[in-house]
Amino acid sequence: MRYSIEDFATLDNFFRRNLINSLTGFKSLNLVGTKSKENITNLAPFSQVFHIGASPALVGLLVRPDTVERHTLQNIIETESFTLNHVKEEFYKEAHQTSARYQISEFEATGLTPEYTEKVFAPYLKESVIKIGLKLEEKHNLAINGTILVIGSIQEIFLPDIVISDDGFIDLQKAGTITCVGLDAYYRTQKIARLSYAKPDKPISPLTPKGGI
Amino acid sequence: MRYSIEDFATLDNFFRRNLINSLTGFKSLNLVGTKSKENITNLAPFSQVFHIGASPALVGLLVRPDTVERHTLQNIIETESFTLNHVKEEFYKEAHQTSARYQISEFEATGLTPEYTEKVFAPYLKESVIKIGLKLEEKHNLAINGTILVIGSIQEIFLPDIVISDDGFIDLQKAGTITCVGLDAYYRTQKIARLSYAKPDKPISPLTPKGGI
Repeated sequence: MRYSIEDFATLDNFFRRNLINSLTGFKSLNLVGTKSKENITNLAPFSQVFHIGASPALVGLLVRPDTVERHTLQNIIETESFTLNHVKEEFYKEAHQTSARYQISEFEATGLTPEYTEKVFAPYLKESVIKIGLKLEEKHNLAINGTILVIGSIQEIFLPDIVISDDGFIDLQKAGTITCVGLDAYYRTQKIARLSYAKPDKPISPLTPKGGI
Repeated sequence: MRYSIEDFATLDNFFRRNLINSLTGFKSLNLVGTKSKENITNLAPFSQVFHIGASPALVGLLVRPDTVERHTLQNIIETESFTLNHVKEEFYKEAHQTSARYQISEFEATGLTPEYTEKVFAPYLKESVIKIGLKLEEKHNLAINGTILVIGSIQEIFLPDIVISDDGFIDLQKAGTITCVGLDAYYRTQKIARLSYAKPDKPISPLTPKGGI
């Protein structure tokens, strides 16, 4: 099948949204934890989270201002603090459910558990095994469609020893982290391989650092 | 294990790069096809590609200017054209190998095949079953670390009929699209479920649109 830019306008809105949302590939899935100045906690699923740099350690988050995510954005701007919490299969339905337009905290509504550290104002998710605490650094408005790119610097991270390889790689399959597609599809994963650093004059080979991950 | 921002500075550079790169979760994997004004083709793997909007249909691409990806960026700026091509397990080693610093075209070096359409200047990858042709719309410099955010509008897409659900959702597992973590790890996927639209007063349920995807 081929769709051109001229065809897009003729597609049903719902069909087009699903199609275009699925198109770029598998996505990370994180629950973003925030808290307002009035101490109202918020938890929302984001699949638009990505690595921006390792030194300094920076993460980007894309926010559509016209969606339920607006509480998240407002809290991040007010408090300059947010957390990212990986989603496991054990609570993916609760994670999905946090996208509903609740009047109360999504923690309360779904039974998921907030958890705090001294270093970060925003709540972590207790049920999550990989967690990242961030501080707001930059906000870019993407004029083309009103999307906002939030950039945070990593303040602290928590993850099980057993998923960290000797070379720093994190085995997300072992951690039980899941991935998603589009607006509503969830997937577990199965490792094919890690591959050695690519050089023009050398064949690549599977990479097996000590620790076996 | 806990690492704080103070610990990051004490970590081995290579360890830190792997750790922080793996931390945000599973990522999309696309080979980006471009061509210079002098007709030299280029193919490079990108895991920092994401959905920005469905209407208009926009895709974002993060580029580090200090890496092998610089040819890609230069070609996109010169010609305003690029393609995204999903990676399948059948050619993931060749995809990885395109990250080597070749003096010649990565198509030639790896044996992958360029393919053209009337609408888009940049080459598609023939071996890929899901392909997106884009036009450069915006370029944002992220001052914080020199990363560049390229935004393209989708001009045309190609995908097999059989992976498109009745509601527009694309079954990427069926398409054989793989996902990746960090700098060098590749994964196949297995669907858990699609879930219905979340509402505060309604339990969620698995979603099964006609067409069975």
